[in-house]
Amino acid sequence: MPTMDPNLTSFIEIEADSDFSIHNLPYGIFSLVRDGADDKSQRRAGVAIGDQVLDLALLEAEGLLNLTGGPYFNQPTLNDFIDSGRDNWTRARQSIQKLLSTDCDTLSGNPELLSKALFKQSEVRMHLPIQVPGYTDFYSSKEHATNVGTMFRDPANALLPNWAEMPVGYNGRASTVVVSGTDIIRPSGQLKPKADERPIFSPCRRLDFELETGFIVGQSNQMGHPIKVEDAWDHIFGMVLLNDWSARDIQKWEYVPLGPFNAKTFATQISPWIVTLDALAPFKTDCPPQDPKPLAYLCESTSTSSFDIELSVELLPEGAAEATPICHTNFKYMYWSMAQQLTHHTITGCKVEVGDIMGSGTISGPTPDTFGSMLELAWNATKPIALKGGQSRTFIEDGDTVIMKGFAQKDSIRIGFGEVRGKVLPALDFQFSD
Amino acid sequence: MPTMDPNLTSFIEIEADSDFSIHNLPYGIFSLVRDGADDKSQRRAGVAIGDQVLDLALLEAEGLLNLTGGPYFNQPTLNDFIDSGRDNWTRARQSIQKLLSTDCDTLSGNPELLSKALFKQSEVRMHLPIQVPGYTDFYSSKEHATNVGTMFRDPANALLPNWAEMPVGYNGRASTVVVSGTDIIRPSGQLKPKADERPIFSPCRRLDFELETGFIVGQSNQMGHPIKVEDAWDHIFGMVLLNDWSARDIQKWEYVPLGPFNAKTFATQISPWIVTLDALAPFKTDCPPQDPKPLAYLCESTSTSSFDIELSVELLPEGAAEATPICHTNFKYMYWSMAQQLTHHTITGCKVEVGDIMGSGTISGPTPDTFGSMLELAWNATKPIALKGGQSRTFIEDGDTVIMKGFAQKDSIRIGFGEVRGKVLPALDFQFSD
Repeated sequence: MPTMDPNLTSFIEIEADSDFSIHNLPYGIFSLVRDGADDKSQRRAGVAIGDQVLDLALLEAEGLLNLTGGPYFNQPTLNDFIDSGRDNWTRARQSIQKLLSTDCDTLSGNPELLSKALFKQSEVRMHLPIQVPGYTDFYSSKEHATNVGTMFRDPANALLPNWAEMPVGYNGRASTVVVSGTDIIRPSGQLKPKADERPIFSPCRRLDFELETGFIVGQSNQMGHPIKVEDAWDHIFGMVLLNDWSARDIQKWEYVPLGPFNAKTFATQISPWIVTLDALAPFKTDCPPQDPKPLAYLCESTSTSSFDIELSVELLPEGAAEATPICHTNFKYMYWSMAQQLTHHTITGCKVEVGDIMGSGTISGPTPDTFGSMLELAWNATKPIALKGGQSRTFIEDGDTVIMKGFAQKDSIRIGFGEVRGKVLPALDFQFSD
Repeated sequence: MPTMDPNLTSFIEIEADSDFSIHNLPYGIFSLVRDGADDKSQRRAGVAIGDQVLDLALLEAEGLLNLTGGPYFNQPTLNDFIDSGRDNWTRARQSIQKLLSTDCDTLSGNPELLSKALFKQSEVRMHLPIQVPGYTDFYSSKEHATNVGTMFRDPANALLPNWAEMPVGYNGRASTVVVSGTDIIRPSGQLKPKADERPIFSPCRRLDFELETGFIVGQSNQMGHPIKVEDAWDHIFGMVLLNDWSARDIQKWEYVPLGPFNAKTFATQISPWIVTLDALAPFKTDCPPQDPKPLAYLCESTSTSSFDIELSVELLPEGAAEATPICHTNFKYMYWSMAQQLTHHTITGCKVEVGDIMGSGTISGPTPDTFGSMLELAWNATKPIALKGGQSRTFIEDGDTVIMKGFAQKDSIRIGFGEVRGKVLPALDFQFSD
């Protein structure tokens, strides 16, 4: 596992508060705005550095990345690179870090190459970085599960008996995982107002976000053969921010007994940059104490299997002068580790695939300002959230943009995720004659 | 929609009770046993005819299929052919039906071509016919939902309030959809014996099948834009038999509040032949009356939107002389139609993709011998099922093979699905020191 070398610096100018220091080097898929959005052949891999993007397809073609096999980066997704294995992940990271460092003149001493390899982030369009074979969402924040159980079910028994025994999760919908910047159409569907005898068809009235992270599976397993918890970290490539868009009123009516479906399948949104576990390694921290001690298949040899990642949510109404921060929380509050989630996912023999996204579940901390959804922040619409400029919100309204950010920081070294940003468009105009 | 012409006959010899008459022509992916199993480049598309397989890759290469675009059939999955659209589905079906008919001598008069184009089914290995982007499972048998609700929850309120208002469904796991003939390893996981205070890690003690059909999505929709119920049939390519393997004890402990996960993700098994809706069209029949009348978005203009398909399950213990039929039921018992399922799936804006499989849910009829799972047939292990040879079963034991069959028949014309067959292997030997 690489350590953080505070003396490692880049010849690229990078602001002190940039998410994209030379210690980070997250992977994404980009194309140039001037080339248009629709030509997939223009999409290729890059890493973010400061406010720029380094074109990995070009560097690979120039033979500067020291990889086995390939080409991996002149492609519209990162799946093949990730599938090529940990040895290549290490080779790529070391090569890129060296090429960007002050000590190396391969790039810095070649202005012509450099001008072709670096683009301003404002000049590029970011795309979904992976083809997503499967998306699973966990439910691993004790505070979130307790809050929701209190509001939706029974405050006296908010946490169900299985919750503390396993990382509860469910299958999500991979086909609607979209990248930051994609507009989200307000979903319409069945909801059941209390006063009505039957459900109605209506635009969602309680549209919500869920602040989550997701990890990207980097190595598959054979069907029927679970991943042991001590091997699980080797199967994880990196992490993204994730907004698990949720229609609370549709969810409440549909979710018994088979779980959320229409309420979630309309959109799940991720940040464009995948931050690798190698970059995050220096920010490892303890999970909360697990009581009762998990069954043996879920027991890790160390409790240091969480990460200290600051997370926030901002809300920007249409036309507002500035966004209002409405939540500050931290990934380290999560009760179950990503290794435990992945092992539990496969324990009955389920196969995971390279590029699968595993959502953490809503990340809520112990205090009200650390809750990761509007449902919790405005406590089931009983405590409206005041926004700058005088508006308030209990749920998300048309024209609102939800912005999630995340970073890890130690001393002067910062590793960030950038953001996942989504704007809500009005519901379609359905013409049904009920 | 093509009609059934009883005078249409094939020059190929076909037994009267064959599933694969000239009226059927289901699509599958095969390779020759003599070429081995692992070389994907040997996999190609075929249709079943009698006890033989017609090689579509060869016929397409010979220019005999009259398709637009392609080649589609010299590929290891049917996705590209299905994605090429309804016009090509019609062209392929008409061309193949003509080539196999008594009236046409293109094949019948060319022994050399015929010998290269036809293989005994005993000489071929069948593969998963599609690459499955997404798998969803519905819950659309009223009898099944009532039976399960009675056993798992509350007999007085077995059917939950949302059940009669929408085709309840949940996201399944696409990565473990496997073809008939694949062995199934008994899953191990968390179960919670009543007498114990905490769950234990154990091989599943209540392994079950669920008799289902699945439909294959033939046309995608745009994210955010639901498929109208009157358009839904155009988005469906065909149907397969489906065994939704289920670990009842794991399911009972894990499924609240987010639905089944480990209990289902270990395996879903389908028949290798996709029977097209064109072939099934003459067997359309009424859905059961829907009361209350569904909301407008789910209202079809006709009640004739089910299919009269006989379905059965047989159980074959290891070493037994013969299999025992344990269930006879019919697809027509399903309360919600496939069009309603697909429309509901997309109503909040979910995107479906070509090759997606949508499971019907367990197909149970009104009488005990028509129940589609062991859970119901042996009524929660209280009524053991007697097998030929003297054994009995309450759930599936190691070495048991579960065989599902299905066909539609009118007068002398029969259209069958073949079978989905899976044998259960013992659980892996885990060495945990709890």
